[in-house]
Amino acid sequence: MNQEHVFDKATALTPSENGKAWSGHIPASHENMVGPFGGAIAATLLNAVLQHPYRQGEPISLTVNFAAPIKDAPFEVTAQAVRNNKSTQHWTITMYQQEEVAVTGTALLAHRRETWSDTEAAPPEAPSPEQVPLLSTDNLPRWTHNYALRMLRGLVVAGSPEQTDSRSLLWVRDEPLRPLDWLSLTAICDTFFPRLFVRRQRIFPIGTVSMTTYFLTDGEALDRQGTGYLLAAAQANRFYNNYFDQSGTIWGRDGELLATTHQIVYFRD
Amino acid sequence: MNQEHVFDKATALTPSENGKAWSGHIPASHENMVGPFGGAIAATLLNAVLQHPYRQGEPISLTVNFAAPIKDAPFEVTAQAVRNNKSTQHWTITMYQQEEVAVTGTALLAHRRETWSDTEAAPPEAPSPEQVPLLSTDNLPRWTHNYALRMLRGLVVAGSPEQTDSRSLLWVRDEPLRPLDWLSLTAICDTFFPRLFVRRQRIFPIGTVSMTTYFLTDGEALDRQGTGYLLAAAQANRFYNNYFDQSGTIWGRDGELLATTHQIVYFRD
Repeated sequence: MNQEHVFDKATALTPSENGKAWSGHIPASHENMVGPFGGAIAATLLNAVLQHPYRQGEPISLTVNFAAPIKDAPFEVTAQAVRNNKSTQHWTITMYQQEEVAVTGTALLAHRRETWSDTEAAPPEAPSPEQVPLLSTDNLPRWTHNYALRMLRGLVVAGSPEQTDSRSLLWVRDEPLRPLDWLSLTAICDTFFPRLFVRRQRIFPIGTVSMTTYFLTDGEALDRQGTGYLLAAAQANRFYNNYFDQSGTIWGRDGELLATTHQIVYFRD
Repeated sequence: MNQEHVFDKATALTPSENGKAWSGHIPASHENMVGPFGGAIAATLLNAVLQHPYRQGEPISLTVNFAAPIKDAPFEVTAQAVRNNKSTQHWTITMYQQEEVAVTGTALLAHRRETWSDTEAAPPEAPSPEQVPLLSTDNLPRWTHNYALRMLRGLVVAGSPEQTDSRSLLWVRDEPLRPLDWLSLTAICDTFFPRLFVRRQRIFPIGTVSMTTYFLTDGEALDRQGTGYLLAAAQANRFYNNYFDQSGTIWGRDGELLATTHQIVYFRD
């Protein structure tokens, strides 16, 4: 029998005792500097929607607000379908820890229909992943050990001078191999090293406070990606008085734009 | 005595009878094709937070999910501070109409501290607003009459061929003049004509389903803008099977990046 994948363990939810919520506990495998990797938290919130018996359709958007650090302890997640329309379903999601709100979220699911389609954004130019060295994550936070990261831009190297921009570009996939799905795509949207670290080539106390992802594809396209590398690009628009923003794009190896992802991050310096 | 500004009337909220919510009704001045202008709805949700007695700090992020069209009738808005930290405050917001959820939202407020700051994004090149013709809004939906729009890119002209991209660039300010504040900036983030219309130069049934704005400045900077024009730029990344995304930036006339704004939009063709 196959062992359960570390990402599935990290994002697992079981019905809670009262049957009105889900229980989970992100394990040490996904530790970050303060609490667990935000991408795993976001995926866990989406999981509460996707495995809900009322769920209809595929994810279109997900917003996750990190209201407090998640402690190394169990949490509860509630997901409520607040509005069902003919083809869309709006959800609100809350993660509680020790009876306090720790994370809030909203998600939109929909049944897509075939229409005129076009991708305006151009995929970033990049050599194939096999031509890019694999990053050693030995000295990085535990969560990075669950990803194969091949960095084209956006390394943070102790002693490097400040950079003129904070752009990141990397090939990324789950480690060990795991076929892409909505949950792993959600988490991959948060695998960029923080803009501030990249720009200033130093580590600062930071924390994402809100993250929004738009899913610009469907489940069949995710299946086509399989266990392949995704190309991920991100940049900041502005750092201003202890917050900065980040916008990113996640591309399939076949050049398909899978998601755009945005976040705003608290920092101290 | 000065007459109340049309935008203040549109976003006004009064305590509801039970004292636990706010009541509002967006007037005909802000009508769009189906229901009121989304920017006015988003600003009304933010208003429920900003005028709340528990409010602390200035907006950092706002997400608004349009779950159902707003009818020409009163609505109720509830805003709840779900988590108060030392310098941040997380809110959930709901707009109800006829006892059903019509709009959901989340907002983050914070007290900013002075830090190292830098704007990486470059303001788009544009001639001064006085050099750009004012758009006649006579034949456009009513909400546009509340804005002075000077379009550099992103016009929709009947009979025009499809464009190769959907980029918009315009100078925009409230009409009549009104000093910029968080509410008007929120609404201005939604004043772009839809990407699909710009790209294909035709009108289709569309509706924004989720919009997220990151406020990258503070109240003092808004005050400095006064009643001046703002430069607004937007583009789509992908149109795919009845949804497309949009990312925009809103700049002060002095070149300051005030906000980044993202949305995902349903369409039929």
